[in-house]
Amino acid sequence: MTVEIISVGTELLLGNVVNTDAAYLSEQCANLGLFCYYQSVVGDNRERLAENLRLAMSRSDVILLTGGLGLAEDDITKSVVAEVTGRVLTEDAHTRERIESYYKKKKKKPLENTKSLAMVPENSEVIDNQNGIDPGIILREEEKCIILLPGRPEELRPMFEESIKSYLSGLEPGNISSQTVKICGITESAAQETVKDLIDAQSNPTIALYAKTEGVHIRVTAKGENEKETKKLIKPVVKELKSRFGASIYSTDDKITLEQSVVDLLKENDLTLVTAESCTGGMIASRLINVPGVSDVIKEGFITYANKAKRKYLGVKKSSLLKYGAVSDTVAKEMAKGGCFYTKADACVAVTGIAGPDGGTPEKPVGLVYIACCVCGKTTVEEYLFSGERAQIREATTAAALTMLRDCLLAYFSEVTFGNREKNKK
Amino acid sequence: MTVEIISVGTELLLGNVVNTDAAYLSEQCANLGLFCYYQSVVGDNRERLAENLRLAMSRSDVILLTGGLGLAEDDITKSVVAEVTGRVLTEDAHTRERIESYYKKKKKKPLENTKSLAMVPENSEVIDNQNGIDPGIILREEEKCIILLPGRPEELRPMFEESIKSYLSGLEPGNISSQTVKICGITESAAQETVKDLIDAQSNPTIALYAKTEGVHIRVTAKGENEKETKKLIKPVVKELKSRFGASIYSTDDKITLEQSVVDLLKENDLTLVTAESCTGGMIASRLINVPGVSDVIKEGFITYANKAKRKYLGVKKSSLLKYGAVSDTVAKEMAKGGCFYTKADACVAVTGIAGPDGGTPEKPVGLVYIACCVCGKTTVEEYLFSGERAQIREATTAAALTMLRDCLLAYFSEVTFGNREKNKK
Repeated sequence: MTVEIISVGTELLLGNVVNTDAAYLSEQCANLGLFCYYQSVVGDNRERLAENLRLAMSRSDVILLTGGLGLAEDDITKSVVAEVTGRVLTEDAHTRERIESYYKKKKKKPLENTKSLAMVPENSEVIDNQNGIDPGIILREEEKCIILLPGRPEELRPMFEESIKSYLSGLEPGNISSQTVKICGITESAAQETVKDLIDAQSNPTIALYAKTEGVHIRVTAKGENEKETKKLIKPVVKELKSRFGASIYSTDDKITLEQSVVDLLKENDLTLVTAESCTGGMIASRLINVPGVSDVIKEGFITYANKAKRKYLGVKKSSLLKYGAVSDTVAKEMAKGGCFYTKADACVAVTGIAGPDGGTPEKPVGLVYIACCVCGKTTVEEYLFSGERAQIREATTAAALTMLRDCLLAYFSEVTFGNREKNKK
Repeated sequence: MTVEIISVGTELLLGNVVNTDAAYLSEQCANLGLFCYYQSVVGDNRERLAENLRLAMSRSDVILLTGGLGLAEDDITKSVVAEVTGRVLTEDAHTRERIESYYKKKKKKPLENTKSLAMVPENSEVIDNQNGIDPGIILREEEKCIILLPGRPEELRPMFEESIKSYLSGLEPGNISSQTVKICGITESAAQETVKDLIDAQSNPTIALYAKTEGVHIRVTAKGENEKETKKLIKPVVKELKSRFGASIYSTDDKITLEQSVVDLLKENDLTLVTAESCTGGMIASRLINVPGVSDVIKEGFITYANKAKRKYLGVKKSSLLKYGAVSDTVAKEMAKGGCFYTKADACVAVTGIAGPDGGTPEKPVGLVYIACCVCGKTTVEEYLFSGERAQIREATTAAALTMLRDCLLAYFSEVTFGNREKNKK
């Protein structure tokens, strides 16, 4: 079965808004084993939307329309869909009640034209919007299925998760499941090389690569008669990926981010972390602190942009700064060690580098970064050279720092475990 | 003249990648006064791309194609464009030389199929890619103009800026110019309300609103016979916007971000800044440190996530933490004052809040944030209530903190100026 996405909104055609809805829906559909061959964007224009919808109905089985369901005069999606499918708009009593109680709850007087929100094409199914007032709508037209969704991501995503996903997976017999293998510290081309034979050999499950700043996500999607069968198909492929990528895999759970996996590692082992950042200027801490419940792990962090601050809070030696410069492996190491020493944290990740655009020299070019990790007394330092603009260099540095911190934590844990095992042998 | 954007790449249809290229190009075209009525995405499939291109040529004057110019087998854009326009692919000697010298410089052996990069449809104009190896291509087919651009944003954007923009503006007689008025601390609907009459009344220049986390960008675009004329059309509208939005406007320059405007204010007045962050965990510092040359202004910053850290580095009183709690105006104020006191910085921005998902109570719900700014001894504190998920609350807090810091700096400067004026009166 094929699906097509039509995003409605002049704001998309003006570039005011990036079309994240289309990417989200495409990924979700791929996940459900639905093939998406076309995405398109049209403005709030009746003729062009109608033309686009007719074209989509001529070539795809399911048409997902986003946006244009609201109250504004230029919100035309419902009436154009009604026109193209030869239906009239009728009031949906249930939605009218929902809207009335919504305004009552907000203690606001409903706007004059609120009634139009409850008008839906006849013979369609209404999907309640848990995060807004314009409902989603599903209608069947001969062999085709047309689904209208709100454009705002915070309304669209929960509605898709809660209602549309199961509806779509019910359109075709059988079950489709997928699992994501998340890998850090690897380029897309290296990952591609590693799994090329699997991609070529497999048609069920299929394997798709998604490039990320910190590495690659590999999604394995299987189709089968029931969940038991699909899970059975996915399992050996994930096992094979695990054997190929080993410890570089930080999660096989869709919801776990790299920073979450680092925080989990620290939490499980009852370790605290401090950050000491120069060129990233708080970006590493900021990503880690986005993880809910991080307060058990991170108590504090330093942004030591100036040399003086590196000395004051981290105890970096004046002589090291003079002899090697602020951007050097020696200073990175001293930052990481000092971070642990002065805060009594178990681990510290420290970065110093030249994010540019100025400050580069032939010996120390823009993009040169040193990252050091101190874990329970053991300090590791690595040199990196990133390219791009200031923001890109800082983002790449942050991803590399999280990856390296994870590696150092794993290395430490395996040594501890290995040490214990050695002891047990005696 | 109308323009249409076709993005080529299966990765877009799988949702691997968000189509930022389309948003970028749409905004640029709107900027040039070109009307974009359609965007579409097709996969790496010859038939579907050809069908889409034919449709685009039947309804638009300029067709911008992005992606599918590279070395991979599924990079088909050039050959499909050649097919649809009835041309053959011929080798471009200039591009072949560029590619050879590229590999020589990289000390890499060119891949076997590198030759295909220099193959372009006959009678087309080649645009050098300064950030990659696949060139851009411009070709005219009867009344239509077809432009092929690389898909990677870091290659596409400079190429558009340097070559395509002037080419497109040369297609129509006259001149199109635009200016962006950037406003912080305002919602899109409030801004819309403020300029509704202008939007309705104006057709040249046009006025377009772009919602941002920290406020709104208003773009004024004029069309005229020459640059002098367009500038003359834009000037009174920008003046009117300035009188309506006053000091909330932080820039009328496209390239200046809010953080840049804050850093500039500090720099011009020779002030230093320190950050003291709890729930934002480094995000404010990270945005400020993204401004090149920030080292004159920011020397250091604190992430004081735990109460202990708030006491240790910022001198927050134990009694205040006990009596009012960490998320309180008192503690925010003490953080900002302490930040200045302990670091001798002239200014400090401090935040403390509940980013969630846990930690909220009926009295202090998730999203409650206190932001305090201390500028040369004067401390201001404000209470905010943000909604959304953890990441959204943290981003909104960061934008609000930068906005408030700017307000406090402006208030301080105007007082200083006013004080001086008073003195002069004597």
